Amino acid sequence: MKEDKVITIVGLGVVGGSYAIALSKKGYTVYGVNRSQEGLELALKAGAIKEGAHTPEEFFAKSDIIVIALYPDQIIGYLEKYGKYIKKGCLISDVAGIKSMFVDKINEHVPQGCEFLFCHPMAGREKRGFRYADDRVLQGANFLLVKTENTSDEAIERMTRLVKNIGFGNIRITDAATHDKVIAYTSQLPHAIAVSLINSDDENSETASFIGDSYRDLTRIANINEDLWCELFMGNKDNLLHSITSFQNQLSVLKKAIEDNDDKTLKELFVKSTARRIGLEKKKTQ
Amino acid sequence: MKEDKVITIVGLGVVGGSYAIALSKKGYTVYGVNRSQEGLELALKAGAIKEGAHTPEEFFAKSDIIVIALYPDQIIGYLEKYGKYIKKGCLISDVAGIKSMFVDKINEHVPQGCEFLFCHPMAGREKRGFRYADDRVLQGANFLLVKTENTSDEAIERMTRLVKNIGFGNIRITDAATHDKVIAYTSQLPHAIAVSLINSDDENSETASFIGDSYRDLTRIANINEDLWCELFMGNKDNLLHSITSFQNQLSVLKKAIEDNDDKTLKELFVKSTARRIGLEKKKTQ
Repeated sequence: MKEDKVITIVGLGVVGGSYAIALSKKGYTVYGVNRSQEGLELALKAGAIKEGAHTPEEFFAKSDIIVIALYPDQIIGYLEKYGKYIKKGCLISDVAGIKSMFVDKINEHVPQGCEFLFCHPMAGREKRGFRYADDRVLQGANFLLVKTENTSDEAIERMTRLVKNIGFGNIRITDAATHDKVIAYTSQLPHAIAVSLINSDDENSETASFIGDSYRDLTRIANINEDLWCELFMGNKDNLLHSITSFQNQLSVLKKAIEDNDDKTLKELFVKSTARRIGLEKKKTQ
Repeated sequence: MKEDKVITIVGLGVVGGSYAIALSKKGYTVYGVNRSQEGLELALKAGAIKEGAHTPEEFFAKSDIIVIALYPDQIIGYLEKYGKYIKKGCLISDVAGIKSMFVDKINEHVPQGCEFLFCHPMAGREKRGFRYADDRVLQGANFLLVKTENTSDEAIERMTRLVKNIGFGNIRITDAATHDKVIAYTSQLPHAIAVSLINSDDENSETASFIGDSYRDLTRIANINEDLWCELFMGNKDNLLHSITSFQNQLSVLKKAIEDNDDKTLKELFVKSTARRIGLEKKKTQ
């Protein structure tokens, strides 16, 4: 199999930047494309990229792998504009948090002789920009590979080798429909909850003196990039609404147990959640 | 003011055990009372206590401060049974997560010449028992002092000195009604949410491969001590139901924005939550 040595990262934000740092540390030749000059300079200074530019023509012509770490709705336009500069045999990928809505469209725009592999690294941060990029967030993180009818085994092998190399843990192959359904529950619903929790605070309450780790943990992701997450929510609307409804139903069961002074049901809910949480940790460490 | 040197901790669980470790490190003479022999032996072995026993008579007779780190509903019975052994001038306290329901009752059972100061250290863990005790969880944590009509300034000063000494950060004086109202929101509601989130998972879903830090953070406290938390929920029922309802309303607003494809409202919710979360961090570091 072809050895991939030259990688271009488009978008040196938190995710793209973290990739760049990790890849450079592992000896890959990494080029960075970024809209802002500041991001490019920070990445160069940090040794995360060999060279940087605002547009990708030159880098695309010599890259073995390209990671487009832009917002989901920017990917197609990017391929339309710059796809022609990509060299044959290149493996192109993304880092988008939703897939179904554009899988087919992207497959239509892949340059001939290249392949697009849909990827979702489950590692991010609530902050924006290269200054918050950190390769440690990738270590042991889950990585989702989304297979379509166009996906080759070779592409999966190449990407798996790359991401294992920079520290990702469990690499899971799935399809776009399953991905979006489960991600609505594991990623988008938690964000919807965190936002609603902090927004339900009494304006006049002096909450800050009364919090412990639980409130801190549950609201960390209430610090949210509104443009990106609006796009992710709206682009996965039906799945997310389904997850919100399931959660609302569970919370209603718990609320009713409190209203009814029903200790037995309340404890059963706690025992169930405890078993599930312990099960999750076990699966993680397997 | 009197210098407090001898402390008895009743209940060497996660919270009591963490106190014991921290106090011993700071040179206090610490006695431990615990139901299980295993907890006593672990605490002795860890150097967290000087001596341990299953009942407190001997230790109470020589203690300057007593911390009763039992479940809320056990405190009154404990004072009834062992209050007579407590020496005059002793400051007695608790670590309970709710207050209003028993403040008056406890004040009736305080031995003459002693004072009971209601305390709520905002530091815990989702696990049980001394083996999970760790003084690091106290470092910088919030500490709530709940004042009643019986509370003296001297008691507040003695307790403040003690808990500052073992690392607590912001020490806040409040009253029982305010305490229970705010705690319903900052502590009990997050637990209700975490339990409902993990319980709303599809039984057949292979969630573990699809999670990132957000889901891990939001479900950590779904691993919950069912007896303790059932008591805390039921003992603060009205406040908690109010908090759950406010949260449900917020989540409904967000859900409706998604249903209506209302990007503007959704982004406004995100901007609001982001500002609040940043504000929280700022207050913490002040």
